[in-house]
Amino acid sequence: MRVEEFTIEGRNAVLEALRSGRPIDRLYIQDGCKDGPVQTILREARKGEALISFVKKERLDQMSETGKHQGVIAQAAAYEYAQVEDMLALARERGEDPFLFLLDGIEDPHNLGAILRTANLAGAHGVIIPKRRAVGLTAVVARTSAGALNYTPVARVTNLSATIEELKKEGLWFACAAMDGEVMYRCRLTGPLGLVIGGEGDGVSRLVREKCDMTAAIPMKGDIDSLNASVAAGVLAFEVVRQRWGGQ
Amino acid sequence: MRVEEFTIEGRNAVLEALRSGRPIDRLYIQDGCKDGPVQTILREARKGEALISFVKKERLDQMSETGKHQGVIAQAAAYEYAQVEDMLALARERGEDPFLFLLDGIEDPHNLGAILRTANLAGAHGVIIPKRRAVGLTAVVARTSAGALNYTPVARVTNLSATIEELKKEGLWFACAAMDGEVMYRCRLTGPLGLVIGGEGDGVSRLVREKCDMTAAIPMKGDIDSLNASVAAGVLAFEVVRQRWGGQ
Repeated sequence: MRVEEFTIEGRNAVLEALRSGRPIDRLYIQDGCKDGPVQTILREARKGEALISFVKKERLDQMSETGKHQGVIAQAAAYEYAQVEDMLALARERGEDPFLFLLDGIEDPHNLGAILRTANLAGAHGVIIPKRRAVGLTAVVARTSAGALNYTPVARVTNLSATIEELKKEGLWFACAAMDGEVMYRCRLTGPLGLVIGGEGDGVSRLVREKCDMTAAIPMKGDIDSLNASVAAGVLAFEVVRQRWGGQ
Repeated sequence: MRVEEFTIEGRNAVLEALRSGRPIDRLYIQDGCKDGPVQTILREARKGEALISFVKKERLDQMSETGKHQGVIAQAAAYEYAQVEDMLALARERGEDPFLFLLDGIEDPHNLGAILRTANLAGAHGVIIPKRRAVGLTAVVARTSAGALNYTPVARVTNLSATIEELKKEGLWFACAAMDGEVMYRCRLTGPLGLVIGGEGDGVSRLVREKCDMTAAIPMKGDIDSLNASVAAGVLAFEVVRQRWGGQ
């Protein structure tokens, strides 16, 4: 994943960026600026993980690209989404059958970050998320992914069902996580595979599920309804690892 | 796990309870109370999951046990910790070999909640946590456990190593999660078992690890250091399930 640095200048732009949840790495405030809008920006910034520095006006003038910084400049990282084709290319490069995660409606950024770690360590070639009804790559996701975002490509698609159809033409099979599915040990999870994981509430949506070749269930022994979404993704992913590599 | 309802009365007591992270289910505020301390209590309460109701003074007088509610009464749930013996009794009752989780230093309440869900659904008979350097049963844990806290007993012990020694006398074997251990498929995880999981940062501490009979590793294929702690616990727990029940 390519990470691009860029700056945001001016009070409104910075405040909006903070409020939208965009990952801000560093915030530069002009020394002595203590008015209401700057206080609001500081308050918002402290909710996140921005490093805050107070600097002289001359320093801000130097950094500024627009010349209109109003005493406030933020540095942000933009995570550039990959293309699904990049993931297939990565699999070819490694001489492995493609193994992709498709996430249908994961809304919790901690869960998305944890799933990116799992995808990386299960040897997956990429993670596909939908543009709608899902969390994107925010600062919290970047942090909770513990670096996985730098290695494992993430693509965002308009329509997961359409992406599944296209990937079937490339020879992939699709296993959908579902509690009423076949117990995962009996599913054939080797070969070119897409593992489809549903969101925290409703699981995989009907339309996406109907596109899948099989449904895989984790055997459950307890009383409650379901595992945490990122734990379920982890258990299924490492069943794929067991079947593909047998722990080698 | 027994859950006991109790009330907290008065402004300072309620504010302290909120700030300590104690799970508050309902907060009753006297109609028309809008002074500073009440505003502070409301602000703290809104960070959590308390249902807030504005009621007449007469209602509060009725509810009050102390007669000194100062316009504020909170209802909280107290989660009563179980004893390790209860877990062994539960296993006997079910006619199963004991299967316990021991968590060495899990500090993130979301992870503890997710692990309690996993323990429940992996058929474990209980979860043992240390009193120090670990999160206890807070409101966030209760919520993220998705009900598991009502079914799976949780015990808190002073010294995990000593507890392991005692449980060995009961016939349990201990498997410690460690990245440099034997790949988990080759560990014998059947029979009476304690699964020892380390915290987010350092893993299982040396003293606890030395008490274990084996170390089990998840096979890793990727670039980053480690899985999320609750995901790692899930993957190992379901390897235990596979070996014990074979997905039946």
